[in-house]
Amino acid sequence: MTERKRAGRRPGEFELIERYFAPLSGPGAFGLKDDAALLKVRPGRAIVVTQDAIAAGIHFFADDPPASIAAKALRVNLSDLAAKGATPVSFSLALGLPPDWQVKWLTEFARQLASDCRKYAVALTGGDTFLAPAGPVISVTAFGEIAANRYRSRLGAKPGDRLFVTGTIGDAALGLRVRRGVPEYSKLRGAKRLLKAYRYPEPPVEFAPLIGEFASAAMDISDGFVGDLGKLAAASRVDFTVAAADVPLSKAVREALPIAGALEAALTGGDDYQFLITVPSRKCAAFTSAVAGAGLAASELATAVAGAGRAIILAAQGRAMRFGQLSHEHF
Amino acid sequence: MTERKRAGRRPGEFELIERYFAPLSGPGAFGLKDDAALLKVRPGRAIVVTQDAIAAGIHFFADDPPASIAAKALRVNLSDLAAKGATPVSFSLALGLPPDWQVKWLTEFARQLASDCRKYAVALTGGDTFLAPAGPVISVTAFGEIAANRYRSRLGAKPGDRLFVTGTIGDAALGLRVRRGVPEYSKLRGAKRLLKAYRYPEPPVEFAPLIGEFASAAMDISDGFVGDLGKLAAASRVDFTVAAADVPLSKAVREALPIAGALEAALTGGDDYQFLITVPSRKCAAFTSAVAGAGLAASELATAVAGAGRAIILAAQGRAMRFGQLSHEHF
Repeated sequence: MTERKRAGRRPGEFELIERYFAPLSGPGAFGLKDDAALLKVRPGRAIVVTQDAIAAGIHFFADDPPASIAAKALRVNLSDLAAKGATPVSFSLALGLPPDWQVKWLTEFARQLASDCRKYAVALTGGDTFLAPAGPVISVTAFGEIAANRYRSRLGAKPGDRLFVTGTIGDAALGLRVRRGVPEYSKLRGAKRLLKAYRYPEPPVEFAPLIGEFASAAMDISDGFVGDLGKLAAASRVDFTVAAADVPLSKAVREALPIAGALEAALTGGDDYQFLITVPSRKCAAFTSAVAGAGLAASELATAVAGAGRAIILAAQGRAMRFGQLSHEHF
Repeated sequence: MTERKRAGRRPGEFELIERYFAPLSGPGAFGLKDDAALLKVRPGRAIVVTQDAIAAGIHFFADDPPASIAAKALRVNLSDLAAKGATPVSFSLALGLPPDWQVKWLTEFARQLASDCRKYAVALTGGDTFLAPAGPVISVTAFGEIAANRYRSRLGAKPGDRLFVTGTIGDAALGLRVRRGVPEYSKLRGAKRLLKAYRYPEPPVEFAPLIGEFASAAMDISDGFVGDLGKLAAASRVDFTVAAADVPLSKAVREALPIAGALEAALTGGDDYQFLITVPSRKCAAFTSAVAGAGLAASELATAVAGAGRAIILAAQGRAMRFGQLSHEHF
């Protein structure tokens, strides 16, 4: 074995695909030996497609664990699919590596991706590896399967529909503060759990079939609860009035509430990857019992009313809260 | 009108999508107002998907005309689809802009994309805009439609099949030298045409149905003729022996041949976006007459023989040419 090999020789593109990514490929991907993939669709079904990219210094820290970068790159996309009612099936990966990329980094990145392929039952269809001068940039395009009439956009909420939110809100936003080393957050007992929520989003993909069956509209919360609820309201042209006290918070987030600005951060920070779901009132009983039956959690927050398309959040005193920034702005 | 507006206020993400990209959206894209798109597939058809990203400083120069960056980002993907036999239908766009991005840049980028949508009859399904610290990085995922049994991989060439190549080879590789300001190339009479071939690839997408009907294997040439022919040979486990003199060259490339290394550059440089197509010999007459009937050009170069999977290029004296680098290496 030469010195060079012992130091971890970097593979070329062909070897890199063969070694790290071909094992993740599925049907129609030709073992990643071809230039494209063939997605077959069962009769009566359609494909749902979404594409979200993440870049070092913007969506993650360049020195974050490679596993967390892999998890985030894939899961933010599976989140979008499931929130539309689609069952995730496969994904394509464009991976831009910095010129000084390390084999160890890639090994950990690929290992997490393999683990997520099993966890979410998805396979790689193909993609591209390239040099990206400013550190990793990862563009995943994800594909889901759906009965075409079960797709749920953010445009379909009607007055009278009930608003639900899955899981808990704000864990990742406060986890980002832990990651940044903000002292008040770093010394919380739940700090590790918050950090993990930021690094490893856990979109509740099990909701996909329930969304397809019961929802009038749905979307995932990626840019913050308040802002994304406002987007749903605007797209459907309905208003929602939500009591902040009703928004489900984890034990770790509740522990943080005495910190000035923590509630606002939890409600407006991004990276929740939970779902907003509206359900026509006549289907609510069936929906909530299906949710319980599947061992999932969703909290009812409001009833949509005809309006200008606004989300109003009420503080404990019943007054509308004001936020400096409603949600994460990409630009 | 405020000073700020007059100076060209930069739109936020929502406004940016609404103004520049929503007009390019097609069926199932919900006017880019939703988080995903719905791709419907006709019975008996499948979707072909491919994803190629391009980054400033790697695949293009940061100060290239934004229109050429847009054209390249989209067309390199349409090239992959058509080379598999698929008819391009739509695409998803992840657009990473540098922090100092300009409205003028984006306007020209989007205008070219709109023009290409018309030229190639494709529509935008969605995507993502984000900040990319080191200048534009663009990840396109493109979707084509195909009868499932018409997909042509690079694995299907058999001994006895004839090898064809579309169009001409090397224009873009020499155009890159013009772009770099290499004097011998810059003063060629055809310099402008070579530069244009580098900046605005013209994949012969009209070949898609002919590939589906007649080919045993096909792929586009993106990383250089010699290297990509070697990949086709290796994937299909056949050998090809091609006389360099038979490789079709444009007038502009022929003018450059007296320059030392020009032929090697033309044969091994990237960015051709022409197609390698193998056709079983019994279908050759029908293929060539269909090509002529469609007003297209393809040159017959070789016959596949059983072998180790190599491409051998013969110089005028009948000796195998040796190349420093067979094709563009991504890493």
